[in-house]
Amino acid sequence: MSEVLRKHIEKFIAIDDKDFSKIRSYFKTIEARKKHNLLTEGKICISNYFVISGCLRLFFVNEKGVEQTVQFALENWWLADYTSFSAQKPSEFYIQTIEKSTILAIDFISQEKLLKEFPYMERYFRFIHQRAHAAYQFRIKYLYSSSREELYHAFNQLYPEFVQRIPQYLLASYLGFTPEYLSEIRNKRIS
Amino acid sequence: MSEVLRKHIEKFIAIDDKDFSKIRSYFKTIEARKKHNLLTEGKICISNYFVISGCLRLFFVNEKGVEQTVQFALENWWLADYTSFSAQKPSEFYIQTIEKSTILAIDFISQEKLLKEFPYMERYFRFIHQRAHAAYQFRIKYLYSSSREELYHAFNQLYPEFVQRIPQYLLASYLGFTPEYLSEIRNKRIS
Repeated sequence: MSEVLRKHIEKFIAIDDKDFSKIRSYFKTIEARKKHNLLTEGKICISNYFVISGCLRLFFVNEKGVEQTVQFALENWWLADYTSFSAQKPSEFYIQTIEKSTILAIDFISQEKLLKEFPYMERYFRFIHQRAHAAYQFRIKYLYSSSREELYHAFNQLYPEFVQRIPQYLLASYLGFTPEYLSEIRNKRIS
Repeated sequence: MSEVLRKHIEKFIAIDDKDFSKIRSYFKTIEARKKHNLLTEGKICISNYFVISGCLRLFFVNEKGVEQTVQFALENWWLADYTSFSAQKPSEFYIQTIEKSTILAIDFISQEKLLKEFPYMERYFRFIHQRAHAAYQFRIKYLYSSSREELYHAFNQLYPEFVQRIPQYLLASYLGFTPEYLSEIRNKRIS
């Protein structure tokens, strides 16, 4: 199971057996059922989460009580509310499993210790956040440039595995439209 | 002028005179007039830009030929198209000065050399991207949770210096609505 994390780290930096074994020891493994909350609004986002299997989402509850999805994390993705995590202050978000999931969690203090012991891991996390930063620049581009229908098709092309796997109402929430509208677009395509 | 960068780095990590002098040597200074393009669509985003004074914006041109602003960078902010910069492939964005600006630019190869010579600078850049990542999570929250009017008022409260300084049509573009609508909201507030 740890091999998933190791392979992911090795995409960016070299790492040997001895170091990885120590690095691994900073994480704890969470086996969570579907719809388990790893983070609840008002609580501190204690950990940074790496998905081994399954899927997570970051969402908030709007004034009407509707859950609005901000970010997904499939296998090999990291997820946290980075405002809450980095300042260890209460969060405005939830993090929840969409499927039964296996997750590695590293709490804030452990991550700081890990980075002190293995400063080259800063490079790994720099890449993770730089990629997320880049992805959000494109997300805003798509949100602002496309009709809602184009947005769905672009997303479909970029992340086909997502569209197959994520429940329709969550995908609609992520793309900023209603489940009914998503269903309409999908039916149009099939017919 | 270099002191601005040094102070910013020292917010996150300790740095001595000797190292900073070497780090500084990897950057070149750009004195740009207002509305100067540092990056043009179709070209590679060669450099990562740090704003000493003035203001930059990242934007794209949509199908209707309208410029749509994705990100701003005031003093002490970094800006690049990180997809283009990290892969050194053609960009879908523009980067332009909004005001007469003084910018430090570090090209991709120089940044890699800098990070090899001073690996602790990975920690600095990790913080920069982690903060941007956190800011984008909130940006999506605001975009999805608020009416357009609430969005403007929230932005006004969070970044009053921005709202004073940025031309109205650019702010409207950034918030995803028309300059006319922004003008309407502003007038409502004054009256």
